[in-house]
Amino acid sequence: MSADTPIDRGFFMPAEWEPHARCWMAWPCRAALWGDGMMAAQVAYAEVARAIAEFEPVTMVARQDQVAEASLACGPGIDVLPLPIDDSWTRDTGPTFVVDGKGAVAGVSWQFNVWGDNLPGYDNDARLAEEVLDHLEADCFRAPLVLEGGSIHVDGAGTLITTEQCLLNPNRNPLLSRGEIEEHLMHFLGIRKVIWLGEGLEDDETDGHVDNVAAFVKPGVVVATMPADPVDPNHRIMQDNVARLRGSRDAAGREIEVVELPQPARRENPNGVRQALSYANFYIANGGIVMPGFEDPEDAKARAVLDKLFPDRDVVQVSGSDIVVGGGCIHCITQQQPAGDPFG
Amino acid sequence: MSADTPIDRGFFMPAEWEPHARCWMAWPCRAALWGDGMMAAQVAYAEVARAIAEFEPVTMVARQDQVAEASLACGPGIDVLPLPIDDSWTRDTGPTFVVDGKGAVAGVSWQFNVWGDNLPGYDNDARLAEEVLDHLEADCFRAPLVLEGGSIHVDGAGTLITTEQCLLNPNRNPLLSRGEIEEHLMHFLGIRKVIWLGEGLEDDETDGHVDNVAAFVKPGVVVATMPADPVDPNHRIMQDNVARLRGSRDAAGREIEVVELPQPARRENPNGVRQALSYANFYIANGGIVMPGFEDPEDAKARAVLDKLFPDRDVVQVSGSDIVVGGGCIHCITQQQPAGDPFG
Repeated sequence: MSADTPIDRGFFMPAEWEPHARCWMAWPCRAALWGDGMMAAQVAYAEVARAIAEFEPVTMVARQDQVAEASLACGPGIDVLPLPIDDSWTRDTGPTFVVDGKGAVAGVSWQFNVWGDNLPGYDNDARLAEEVLDHLEADCFRAPLVLEGGSIHVDGAGTLITTEQCLLNPNRNPLLSRGEIEEHLMHFLGIRKVIWLGEGLEDDETDGHVDNVAAFVKPGVVVATMPADPVDPNHRIMQDNVARLRGSRDAAGREIEVVELPQPARRENPNGVRQALSYANFYIANGGIVMPGFEDPEDAKARAVLDKLFPDRDVVQVSGSDIVVGGGCIHCITQQQPAGDPFG
Repeated sequence: MSADTPIDRGFFMPAEWEPHARCWMAWPCRAALWGDGMMAAQVAYAEVARAIAEFEPVTMVARQDQVAEASLACGPGIDVLPLPIDDSWTRDTGPTFVVDGKGAVAGVSWQFNVWGDNLPGYDNDARLAEEVLDHLEADCFRAPLVLEGGSIHVDGAGTLITTEQCLLNPNRNPLLSRGEIEEHLMHFLGIRKVIWLGEGLEDDETDGHVDNVAAFVKPGVVVATMPADPVDPNHRIMQDNVARLRGSRDAAGREIEVVELPQPARRENPNGVRQALSYANFYIANGGIVMPGFEDPEDAKARAVLDKLFPDRDVVQVSGSDIVVGGGCIHCITQQQPAGDPFG
C-alpha cells in the first residue's frame, strides 16, 4: 500500500495497445447473476481466454472449488489462480495498472460499490484488485473514488473518455464535484484532459460504461458504436457522444477523429431489459484484437472496421452472446497487465 | 524461435538475486520416480510454492488431470498452468531465462537427455522450456547443447560455475570439447569465465549438479557445502572444489571468496543410494531465501550461515526431506523468470 498517489511517483495508465505482460480474467461463479446461463457463460469465457492466449499469457482467477472446472474448460496453456471472488468482471474489479515509463508497474484499487447498487455479497470482488497486486508483489494505490475500470478509456498520453451518466452518477461519488473527480483521475492515472460523453447504451446496467460505446484505437482516434436506425434511443445518445468527441481536443491538443462501428440488432433479456450489445467492447492484446460477434449480420461489418483500424493486429471474433446476458462483454471480462516489473 | 544466439542480441543470464517476475515449478506426477512417496512429495512441493509465493508470484505447471489436486494442495494465490509434463524439475527442464539489461526477457531451451540417461518417457519435459516460453510469447533460443539448469550457477556478471563430472560427462555432449562447451555458454548465457569444479556430491544421480554443492551469493562470493567428517567421500570432493574456487578469479578479475555450509547427516534411499542432501540447494526469491531443512541438527547452523550472507532477505526454511528422495531439492524444483518484458 502506498500513501502517495501514482503521479507523485511518475506513474500513469498506459494505453491498452501498449505491450502487456498478461491478461487477467475471472471465472463466472455468481449463480444469482447468471442463473441457467452460467455454464454457457463459462464456455464463452473459456473461448475468450483461449483467443487471448494466442497473443499473451492469460490468468483465469477462479474460486478454489472451481479451479478444476475452469482449467478443464480453458484447456492447456491458461493459468488458473485460485482467489476468492464473487463474480467475473475483472475490468471493473481488477486493478487498473499504471506504469512509470521506466519499466515499473503498479496498480490502482478503486472503491467498488457494485455498480452503484451497494448490493451485499461482493466483498471479495471489492478486494480483488488488492489481492491481484499483492500476488504480483506490486505496489497498490488505493483511490478514494468509486469507479469501475469499464467506465474509463485512456489514450495513454493524458486523455481519458468517460460518461457523465456513470462517473457523475449520485450513486457513485455523490460528494465529489466534476472537478474533484477529474483531479482524482489526474492523480491516479496521470490524466490531463477528460472528455465527457453523455450517456452510455440504453438499459446498460452499469449506468453507461464508456467501454460499451467507444474506445481509443490510437491517440486522437476513437471508435464509437452508432445504430443505423434513428428511432433507436441509442441513436440520439450516440449522436450526442460523437458530437462531443468531434468537438473535443485531447491532452495534446489534437482534434478527435471518430470512426463509427455498426450496432447489432436489439436483443432483450427474459426480464425485458435490453442487452448492451456492442462491438466496441473488444480487447486489445499483444498483436491482436479479440472482439465479440453476436451471430448478427453486422458482425462482419464491425470486424472489417477493426481490421482496417488495426492493420498490424490479427482481429479475432468470438461470440459474446452468452457473456452479454451478464451485463458486459469481452472488454468487461478482461484486464491487461502492462509489460514491466511489478517490483520496480 | 530465434536463429541467432542470445549474445548476438545482447542477452545474458542474470544472477538469481536480481528481481524476478515469477517462479516456475511443476507438480510431481511421475509414479515411476516417486513411488509411494509421491503424495508426500506433492505436499512438500506445495509448501515450497507457498513459501516462495510470500515473495513473488509462483506458477505451478501441472498435468491437466492434476490441476485440481495441485491447486487444492497449493491453496489460494498460486497459479496453476496446465501443460503436458513428465515430472517436476523445472530447474533442469524449464527455460534458462536471459535478459538484455534494457527490459527484455527471452529464454534458452537446452537439449534434455534425462540427465545423461536417455530414458524414454520424457518427451514432454524435453519440450517444456519451449512451451513455457511460448506461453509467455517470449523468444526462445534453442541451444545445441545437452544441459540441465541445475548444472550451472552464474554471478550475472560473466562468471559461471559448473562441474567437470556433469558438463564434461560423455553421456551429455561426447562430441564437444571443454572449449566448445565454454563457447556455447558464452553465446547462450553471456559467460566470459567458466570456473570448473571437479565432482558433485557422492551418488548424486544428476552426475554432480553444481547446485547441490555451491552457489553464488553475490559477485565474488560462493557458498559451498562442506562435510565435517573427513572420512565422508564428500569431504575430499568438496575440499577439491573449494580449493579450485579459492584459486580462481571471476570474469571481473576478483578472487573468489568461499563461505562454507554444513552438511546434513548421511541418509540413504531404500535402494541404498545416498541422498544428495544439501543446504546449498536453496532458491533466491525477491526479498527472500527459501532453503531446505532436513530435520537435522545442522539445519539451524545452515540457516544461520544464509541469514548472515543475505542480511536483506528473509530466510525461510522448508523441509526438503520428501523432495530429496526424488533426486533434488528446492533449487532443482524452481526456476526464476527475471523481471522484464518477454515481448520486448
